[in-house]
Amino acid sequence: MEMEKLVSLCKRRGFMFQSSEIYGGINGFWDYGPLGVELKRNIKDAWWHDMITAHDELDVRPGAPSTYEMTGLDCTIIMHPQVWKVSGHQDLFSDMMVDCKESKGRYRYDQLRGRWVEAKGQKVFVTTKVEAEEEDEDLQRRALKFFNLRAKNVEELSWDGDTVSLETISEFENVLAPEAKSVGSLTEPREFNLMFKTIVGAMGTEADTAFLRPETAQGIFVNFKNVVDSTRVKIPFGIAQVGKSFRNEITPRNFTFRSREFEQMEIEFFCHPDSSRKWYEYWRDRRMQWYKDLGLAGERLQLRDHAPDELSHYSTGTADIEYAFPFLPEGEYGELEGIAHRGDFDLRSHMEGKLDPNTCPLEVEKGEDGKPKYRGSGKDLTYRDPETNEKYLPHVIEPSAGADRATLAFLCEAYQEDEQPDDKGKMQTRVVMKLHPRIAPVKAAVFPLVKKEGMPEIAKDVYRALKAKFPAVYDEKGAVGRRYRRQDEAGTPYCITIDGDTLTDKTVTIRDRDSLEQWRVKLDDVVEEIAGRVS
Amino acid sequence: MEMEKLVSLCKRRGFMFQSSEIYGGINGFWDYGPLGVELKRNIKDAWWHDMITAHDELDVRPGAPSTYEMTGLDCTIIMHPQVWKVSGHQDLFSDMMVDCKESKGRYRYDQLRGRWVEAKGQKVFVTTKVEAEEEDEDLQRRALKFFNLRAKNVEELSWDGDTVSLETISEFENVLAPEAKSVGSLTEPREFNLMFKTIVGAMGTEADTAFLRPETAQGIFVNFKNVVDSTRVKIPFGIAQVGKSFRNEITPRNFTFRSREFEQMEIEFFCHPDSSRKWYEYWRDRRMQWYKDLGLAGERLQLRDHAPDELSHYSTGTADIEYAFPFLPEGEYGELEGIAHRGDFDLRSHMEGKLDPNTCPLEVEKGEDGKPKYRGSGKDLTYRDPETNEKYLPHVIEPSAGADRATLAFLCEAYQEDEQPDDKGKMQTRVVMKLHPRIAPVKAAVFPLVKKEGMPEIAKDVYRALKAKFPAVYDEKGAVGRRYRRQDEAGTPYCITIDGDTLTDKTVTIRDRDSLEQWRVKLDDVVEEIAGRVS
Repeated sequence: MEMEKLVSLCKRRGFMFQSSEIYGGINGFWDYGPLGVELKRNIKDAWWHDMITAHDELDVRPGAPSTYEMTGLDCTIIMHPQVWKVSGHQDLFSDMMVDCKESKGRYRYDQLRGRWVEAKGQKVFVTTKVEAEEEDEDLQRRALKFFNLRAKNVEELSWDGDTVSLETISEFENVLAPEAKSVGSLTEPREFNLMFKTIVGAMGTEADTAFLRPETAQGIFVNFKNVVDSTRVKIPFGIAQVGKSFRNEITPRNFTFRSREFEQMEIEFFCHPDSSRKWYEYWRDRRMQWYKDLGLAGERLQLRDHAPDELSHYSTGTADIEYAFPFLPEGEYGELEGIAHRGDFDLRSHMEGKLDPNTCPLEVEKGEDGKPKYRGSGKDLTYRDPETNEKYLPHVIEPSAGADRATLAFLCEAYQEDEQPDDKGKMQTRVVMKLHPRIAPVKAAVFPLVKKEGMPEIAKDVYRALKAKFPAVYDEKGAVGRRYRRQDEAGTPYCITIDGDTLTDKTVTIRDRDSLEQWRVKLDDVVEEIAGRVS
Repeated sequence: MEMEKLVSLCKRRGFMFQSSEIYGGINGFWDYGPLGVELKRNIKDAWWHDMITAHDELDVRPGAPSTYEMTGLDCTIIMHPQVWKVSGHQDLFSDMMVDCKESKGRYRYDQLRGRWVEAKGQKVFVTTKVEAEEEDEDLQRRALKFFNLRAKNVEELSWDGDTVSLETISEFENVLAPEAKSVGSLTEPREFNLMFKTIVGAMGTEADTAFLRPETAQGIFVNFKNVVDSTRVKIPFGIAQVGKSFRNEITPRNFTFRSREFEQMEIEFFCHPDSSRKWYEYWRDRRMQWYKDLGLAGERLQLRDHAPDELSHYSTGTADIEYAFPFLPEGEYGELEGIAHRGDFDLRSHMEGKLDPNTCPLEVEKGEDGKPKYRGSGKDLTYRDPETNEKYLPHVIEPSAGADRATLAFLCEAYQEDEQPDDKGKMQTRVVMKLHPRIAPVKAAVFPLVKKEGMPEIAKDVYRALKAKFPAVYDEKGAVGRRYRRQDEAGTPYCITIDGDTLTDKTVTIRDRDSLEQWRVKLDDVVEEIAGRVS
């Protein structure tokens, strides 16, 4: 499937729009239209239902080391700025950037690539952005221009070696920046923090700087004690949260895949250090299965364990659930969800700093100056097991999913074209969104075959009965074939037609979007039949 | 009910926590705990279900002028900054502030009050914040201090007139600011915009300034054309959205009532100008009824039509749905939802500026310089009626509700205390949250009377069957009376007890939280019984 077709369908049918489109849009921000908002809601609701609401805390789930409890939380986007100091985001959550003094352009250091080229006795490293579609052509075109040569003199260019990242170049004296005309215009790389800043309160001073959260996870960690104190949860248990996060990406791209405002579905699962490895493996497999169950069952989905050198310093295991998005080069995958064994890093960070050695059994990690390395809250975040009386800092397993990426993957997987006869029997290309019935925006459409003989009245009754339970559509306009096509594009799994036979035998036709199978069901059983299939 | 009791229960039972509490909190931001997140989700879901999902677009609803359609949307929090220029928020969405040059304090102009007082031949206007609990005492204390008098010399103070707002004072030469020691330290009032600012993109220049939306409504207006073009909706129809908004309130207060980050549930309803008044009345009454249906049926709820002088310049009618929150003085109400007739103000604002007079039939509102007053998108946002072919700019009715305020009102209304016998027959105060079953966080709790004779096994089966459908709890710890109390505080409407009789006659006891009525139901019918009562 070509990505352009999906992007076009998303706009045409109201799945997604560019934010503020009538003002030319704003880069990295996307709105969900009437169909998109229902799809994304269904995905978030399915996650909440499967992970929390319907979680059975009395039985051991297949693959789990023991029973466990699950609870929810909903924290603010703006938190106390110290949260981000302690989490490391304020110091470390940044990209390296280089500026071009000539063009005033700013580039991600790791996203500039180039080649050494020599002509007219001068050797230059010509660069371009990795985003450039025709990298080699672009480099050649720019080299010709720089040396003031015509295309026919291309053989005067003498290339040296392969295209390499700018990061491999030690100094920029002979580097030609992507939009510059002369060499040596790039600054040294410097850090650019990806958190959006704002000022809270009326004073407007730097002291009141706060950040839009770059992840929902920290809200869970700082509430760990509140949750333990206000509920009767016992370890092992998980806290789940759905909400918006923000990252000031330098180069947002690939539709909603890398946007600046996005929604996360995160679980922080707290367990005893001794069983944390088993819990990590449990969550990794459980989350993979969730995507499969909702329709990402093909070869485009993969679970990838991180190599040891990819791991954060605190992690003893991380796996990504990845999807081969159609906008990626053949063989490449994009991350849908990361499942990380985070050890006690987060709780320890938020705890240390002002600990009372008389009450806290944990050793405080110190920096080179002998002072506590993290300026944590000083609150005791240890957990005392009510049965063994053991006091310890729990380990954390974090399954962190992107709601927008999941939505995009489900859309990509769903998009299909086939050849089907139209109302006159002529073969036509059919665009069909084969979304899992649980997440499809509209569950059923009801059509009277013709607008007479009482068919609309019966159809309207069926529509009303369905609508009381879930999104349904009534459509009496145009040939039935065209009505089917409209629903196929919207991903509606079932179409119900009221025809001449309905008037005599009180049955209706149900048509399956994917198999195109049609079968007759008693009028009285329609709602139950559809309800059973979409839940 | 005293507010302190509710605030305490909210923290103790995990309804709400102060954001970033372990770091001392951040003023104006609140998190929802395990019970709170379910309550708020239920309120938002009830709104979405009742307003959109289950809306029947084929029948005329009681009180409505005609049938209508409803659709959803989900826009980003950060939008193109021009949106806020055009909407008027960048220029007008501000509070007047005064600064104190001595104390560096900053105050809302309308929230300073004071009285003229004379002593030792000097006349001074002493001020305090309206928030001050003992306004008169505070003024007297400060006047004594200013004039260097002891409390026993209070009669030397000669007061002139009543306490009045600072806004009535024309110059501040003799004004004593709330935290100042000498007079004349206040600056002239100046505007302070309530939108949170941030910078989008890597360049970090003023040109890249963007805002966190102060309302979700504008996202709907700028997508009006996208929705019309991508769906088959016809006027009259509504677009609904739920999402976070942000306002940098100078003085956040009253628990979650006035916070800086909050969630809105907004509908923009588009209709023909000729029927807009009727639609306004319809929505005003429909929204009022919604709160009643979910349990705000008492005298504390009121519908208040704005007086003509309260209306915005573009509005021909606005009504507030208000609740007598317990933190307000007797007889005062706080806004839950505003229903406003906005005319064509918003669509016109976003449209005008670069209109083609050949295609747009509307007159452009011009400023004093003869140029279009609003720098809109220039996109034609008019609507062409497919039947009459009439082209016009729709009028808008806006029912705008606060999800956090609704949550708080439902909690305030639910909190009750009564006297009930404990397990030993002694009367005890019972705290019970009488939340409507539809919005209660946990729908049912299942108790085995004792931990033997197979009761836990049966109870667990009942729990599992319930949990597959909605949040339920299993509890076998302690006396049944104590288990009831825990659920009463959480607002769980039904408790199911498995006792000795269950073993023989296969029935269980269901206990109603509010009436305390108990009745027996067949084991096989429990799930259906509870499901019927909570939906």
